[in-house]
Amino acid sequence: MAKDKKLVEAITSMEEDFAQWYTDVVKKAELTDYTSVKGCMVIKPAGYAIWENIQHELDRRFKETGVENVYLPMLIPESLLQKEKDHVEGFAPEVAWVTHGGLEPLQERMCVRPTSETLFCDFYANDIHSYRDLPKVYNQWCSVMRWEKTTRPFLRSREFLWQEGHTAHATAEEAEERTIQMLNVYADFCEEFLAIPVIKGRKTDKEKFAGAEATYTIESLMHDGKALQSGTSHNFGDGFAKAFGIQYADKDNTLKYVHQTSWGMTTRMIGAIIMVHGDNSGLVLPPRVAPTQVMVIPIQMQKDGVLDKANEVKTALAAAGLRVKLDDSEKSPGWKFSEQEMRGIPVRIELGPKDIEAGQAVIVRRDTREKLVTPLSELPQKTAEVLETMQKDMLERARAHRDAHTYTARTLDEFKDIAENKPGFIKAMWCGCQECEDALKEEAGVTSRCIPFVQEQISDTCIYCGKPATKMVYWGKAY
Amino acid sequence: MAKDKKLVEAITSMEEDFAQWYTDVVKKAELTDYTSVKGCMVIKPAGYAIWENIQHELDRRFKETGVENVYLPMLIPESLLQKEKDHVEGFAPEVAWVTHGGLEPLQERMCVRPTSETLFCDFYANDIHSYRDLPKVYNQWCSVMRWEKTTRPFLRSREFLWQEGHTAHATAEEAEERTIQMLNVYADFCEEFLAIPVIKGRKTDKEKFAGAEATYTIESLMHDGKALQSGTSHNFGDGFAKAFGIQYADKDNTLKYVHQTSWGMTTRMIGAIIMVHGDNSGLVLPPRVAPTQVMVIPIQMQKDGVLDKANEVKTALAAAGLRVKLDDSEKSPGWKFSEQEMRGIPVRIELGPKDIEAGQAVIVRRDTREKLVTPLSELPQKTAEVLETMQKDMLERARAHRDAHTYTARTLDEFKDIAENKPGFIKAMWCGCQECEDALKEEAGVTSRCIPFVQEQISDTCIYCGKPATKMVYWGKAY
Ligand SMILES: [Zn+2]
Ligand SMILES: [Zn+2]
Repeated sequence: MAKDKKLVEAITSMEEDFAQWYTDVVKKAELTDYTSVKGCMVIKPAGYAIWENIQHELDRRFKETGVENVYLPMLIPESLLQKEKDHVEGFAPEVAWVTHGGLEPLQERMCVRPTSETLFCDFYANDIHSYRDLPKVYNQWCSVMRWEKTTRPFLRSREFLWQEGHTAHATAEEAEERTIQMLNVYADFCEEFLAIPVIKGRKTDKEKFAGAEATYTIESLMHDGKALQSGTSHNFGDGFAKAFGIQYADKDNTLKYVHQTSWGMTTRMIGAIIMVHGDNSGLVLPPRVAPTQVMVIPIQMQKDGVLDKANEVKTALAAAGLRVKLDDSEKSPGWKFSEQEMRGIPVRIELGPKDIEAGQAVIVRRDTREKLVTPLSELPQKTAEVLETMQKDMLERARAHRDAHTYTARTLDEFKDIAENKPGFIKAMWCGCQECEDALKEEAGVTSRCIPFVQEQISDTCIYCGKPATKMVYWGKAY
Repeated sequence: MAKDKKLVEAITSMEEDFAQWYTDVVKKAELTDYTSVKGCMVIKPAGYAIWENIQHELDRRFKETGVENVYLPMLIPESLLQKEKDHVEGFAPEVAWVTHGGLEPLQERMCVRPTSETLFCDFYANDIHSYRDLPKVYNQWCSVMRWEKTTRPFLRSREFLWQEGHTAHATAEEAEERTIQMLNVYADFCEEFLAIPVIKGRKTDKEKFAGAEATYTIESLMHDGKALQSGTSHNFGDGFAKAFGIQYADKDNTLKYVHQTSWGMTTRMIGAIIMVHGDNSGLVLPPRVAPTQVMVIPIQMQKDGVLDKANEVKTALAAAGLRVKLDDSEKSPGWKFSEQEMRGIPVRIELGPKDIEAGQAVIVRRDTREKLVTPLSELPQKTAEVLETMQKDMLERARAHRDAHTYTARTLDEFKDIAENKPGFIKAMWCGCQECEDALKEEAGVTSRCIPFVQEQISDTCIYCGKPATKMVYWGKAY
């Protein structure tokens, strides 16, 4: 029992210190480890398996919309990075530079890709000639590097894994359509697969991507009331096309510039899963993304027939398409419960001699700890139902939490009071000036998260300057 | 018709210039493209889809043996790379060095990983404490960089994609077992999935991996008679463990060094597929690895009912689990045939008004061009059969080609004559001295490919020095 406690006690409670709680969960659930490479992480099997499920599901959804995967080089020659002015200004200060290849200095230094717009443009400039070559709807899964000063596992690290989609279209309309389409893919993915509700909207000019005409975003709210930018989709217009000379001969035989988009989602979503769903016993994984959905834990395992029956249960659940494991290690049941909870496995099935005698087992939900005594014959079907219910409940609980932490401000005093005392989103009107945005950052410590697609006319004037305002903005402190 | 010819004429014939034929196929089948990043390639959708199938199947086979995936950083601090003497000597001359992060010079430069033994060792030194932590059977899918001087798509490029498995075990026996197990996974994968027959064996000390105690390899023979090292599996013994201090407390409470292995397979296998199976009409993909297995090509598409029926056929084949596409573009059927052949799609189905009237379609095999007139009702089943037969035939044809190009040398003159005039493998006895190996390279231009597991006692003396010899070696020119 002392041992059982040790595992749980090792976690700081989230109410006491949320940041430390996060670090503890990442460590105790064995998602990542530190390395000798400063600012980078090792993603361990339990963490990487979550990423594989994210990849698999996102990739499937991408391909349904006609996306094709490709792979481009990881290095970008400096001259290529510099071709689009805003883009280089945004990224040059935070890239890692390769200056030597083998024993020789390079003629031109190259950076490790922080993102691959410039490489895709270079590629498209060679590959696109005619309207028949359009659209290009390409994506790549890779790692990128940004030389961050302070880092946290999944949320901010010098290297991270992601996908980056890069498309080229004949018309501005088609590019805008694709930009929004991919934002919707991300939003549906977050809600349906990760059980994370999101706000869809547009970034202000200040917050948009370096080189983009428009950046769209999905914003989610963590348990501590901070926002997390969870996926972005950019419309570049023909800005990059002009900088890189990407033209196509249209049906009327005139040369036209293409219109481009890019969109990305990263391993930081694993951080979002932890911070939206976790509790003081550790990780809570939504069933759809959980690498292991069910852990069968035998009670009094040494007794005749218990392990056999536990194996039977495991086989039956696997046959029903569930991802199931059996913990037949020599640890105590209590210790196994703690481990299963720490790792966020959505459901455990407890099975002891008395249960077997009664022809039943106990299904225990990770999120509510609700226990459901179930006849063995109905176990596969009931477990599947519990997982489905849990997936839905987790989304609804996260939505309720977000709504309860979304505030409306009508005066600057009210705004500042909320920003200081009530962690969460603040809805307030904005005139559209960057000066007001800067001032709110300075005076209230919040940034604009997005101009949501679903607007409300809270008042007629800007929360900061009092001038006429027609845009309602979500504000908040962000990761 | 002129247009149809153009596509095919663009390929140099393989008999005329095999290297140029290879380059032409890679280009015309749209597998890769050149980039502004010297020595690196763009892998285009048709090429990347092959890699995805390779990944998916290999990963499945790995996981069946208990492998778990992880992700480690892409950069290696110089001090870490230098910890194992042989290893750094082997790799330091060919790595890319990162010297600046953002605007600041780094305190210690880091290389882009050429392979990750040192990072895994650093990780294992922290992560392994007790016999309970063993074995570790980890793998990662990533890209690596080696600063090659001359490059060719898939075969040799500065950056390539691969998987690298890295394991740690309690005993030497267990490490050796895993090394051989993974070599067998590679061999079975090549033969069963890629239809490429391989020779399993051990590398000589001269040819083994920098830092390994033993390197095992699978060697395959390309159509031009050159060998390709297709996958390697290394047993490190406890050499790395001692350099990095990776110890565990055993059951008897004494500290022991772990025994390690690593094993890898790369995108160069796409080059192998091209060079083993391709012909003068382009690529020929084995059905199991082909992203598209069947192309339905309607004849006289504008005629009433043809396109409808072609769509029906496509739907029926897809329902039978085949990967099928319909080419309903405005090109001529002849052009479509050429394209389907160039891209190596294993089977096409021709379907015109007369076929429809007769209730039939024509299945055409890519490899033999054999035509099979088939009732529409039997089409899904017959197509599946043709694909299965083709997969088997391709392996047998490649095996027959390899066997026909495997020669036995009993005298040095005979050896040199074969090396000069008969492209292929040469089997010959070897005394075990590196001097003889060096001399054969110098005088006959061949390297030892492997000491095969299946030995033959061809003679009692070394082909070069005439001293007693017990090892039969495969020699050849290699990519
Ligand atoms: Zn204002
Ligand atoms: Zn000799």
